[in-house]
Amino acid sequence: MEIVIIGIGNVGSHLTKGFLETGSKVVQLYSRNSDKTKALASRYGIDLISDYKKLRKGADLYLLTVHDSAIKEVAQKVVPYIGPNALLAHTSGATPSTVFKDITDRYGVFYPLQTFSKDLAVDFSNIPFCLDAVEEKDLIFFEKLARKLSPKVYRISDEQRAILHVAAVFVSNFTNHLAGIGKSIVEKEDISFDLLMPLLLESITKLQNITPKDAQTGPAIRGDRNTIERHLNYLERYPDYQNIYKLLSNSINSSLHLK
Amino acid sequence: MEIVIIGIGNVGSHLTKGFLETGSKVVQLYSRNSDKTKALASRYGIDLISDYKKLRKGADLYLLTVHDSAIKEVAQKVVPYIGPNALLAHTSGATPSTVFKDITDRYGVFYPLQTFSKDLAVDFSNIPFCLDAVEEKDLIFFEKLARKLSPKVYRISDEQRAILHVAAVFVSNFTNHLAGIGKSIVEKEDISFDLLMPLLLESITKLQNITPKDAQTGPAIRGDRNTIERHLNYLERYPDYQNIYKLLSNSINSSLHLK
Repeated sequence: MEIVIIGIGNVGSHLTKGFLETGSKVVQLYSRNSDKTKALASRYGIDLISDYKKLRKGADLYLLTVHDSAIKEVAQKVVPYIGPNALLAHTSGATPSTVFKDITDRYGVFYPLQTFSKDLAVDFSNIPFCLDAVEEKDLIFFEKLARKLSPKVYRISDEQRAILHVAAVFVSNFTNHLAGIGKSIVEKEDISFDLLMPLLLESITKLQNITPKDAQTGPAIRGDRNTIERHLNYLERYPDYQNIYKLLSNSINSSLHLK
Repeated sequence: MEIVIIGIGNVGSHLTKGFLETGSKVVQLYSRNSDKTKALASRYGIDLISDYKKLRKGADLYLLTVHDSAIKEVAQKVVPYIGPNALLAHTSGATPSTVFKDITDRYGVFYPLQTFSKDLAVDFSNIPFCLDAVEEKDLIFFEKLARKLSPKVYRISDEQRAILHVAAVFVSNFTNHLAGIGKSIVEKEDISFDLLMPLLLESITKLQNITPKDAQTGPAIRGDRNTIERHLNYLERYPDYQNIYKLLSNSINSSLHLK
């Protein structure tokens, strides 16, 4: 299994390490920069290029780990060198596989559903891989590749991945923002966010054992108007947070349909 | 250190166990019900009463673990039997200590800043205790009591606790609700929430190492209008979630002030 990784970044460098550590071969990295990529390539002895002309032909997979907005453009530049029968895939949750439709014939998606940070280690064994490909044999190849990294391997269509991506914004981007709001509220009064971190962790960790519906606590679900009024009063100084508090409290209050 | 616990519920029963397991004495439980409390009392050999007249006199602390809305009323019923010089405290994040002001002279707050579920075990050593009392000697007593349970012991005034409580709603109640929305979106399409749980956990766990500001990812912070439009389009079928998506995306986009 020879893989060429194009673009690098957080996802690309974590995947490169993951592939190599589970016995898959990364034979070439394409990257326009950087010291980080140089270090990665030299650490693992991988051929590093910054010119599409030097792309190795005949690899089993060309994996684009570029930004969503660059996928199409990079694919257009890459395909003339690897040919329309080479397997091309991206790792994006937000982009349909059909971005490749008019560019090449064999394509798919190899999407690890996780948030990657530059300097934090990644445990792939806990990450779901969402796979899609035009050809069944390529999907089987993706499954083989992904199962070396994680037992959580799923066939997910473009439509399903688009829905997962919407939900992921709520579950990841928005929860992070709420944590940021909590932090800014207490730090404004010289109270350490350390006081709230255990609560935040436990609120999420417990969802491994009970549903969000059963776990919901707080003034909104209790219909505790006094506490809500007091909180809204305090939040007069932060109109943005006050609006969020109102909308989410109303939503909780009317969320008996949630499972 | 003899403690009488009045009200029980989740907080009361977890604290009772915590006190007993760290060498503090719970000498009496007051509860109007229940089979659970009976089991707890008999397991630890604690005197269980359901009549205020039987309240033991001379204990070092009478700790109310009743609902916020019942604190005042229960205090009024309790004080005639324990006297105005007995130390009375509640465990609520939402209620000022001054709820006791016209009822008794020695009072305070013994507030474990955590979310407690009925059937999930509690690790007190990771829970911050927010303490307050009218008299310095009672505050010192609270600190001694709390330090047996946790190294995270803080003196927190009514004003500070009120602010912590507002922030806790964002960090706990609202993040839980967003998880519920994510779950309902994917399950509506027969996709398992298991695919999103690792992302949710990692999004929060990483905040032990980086700030929410540095951790923020997603279409809103990137200013990725195409993805946002596509998501809002999909969310047409859930007007409530669509409103939340809009408001939070705008807030993230204008949140450069967040630390």
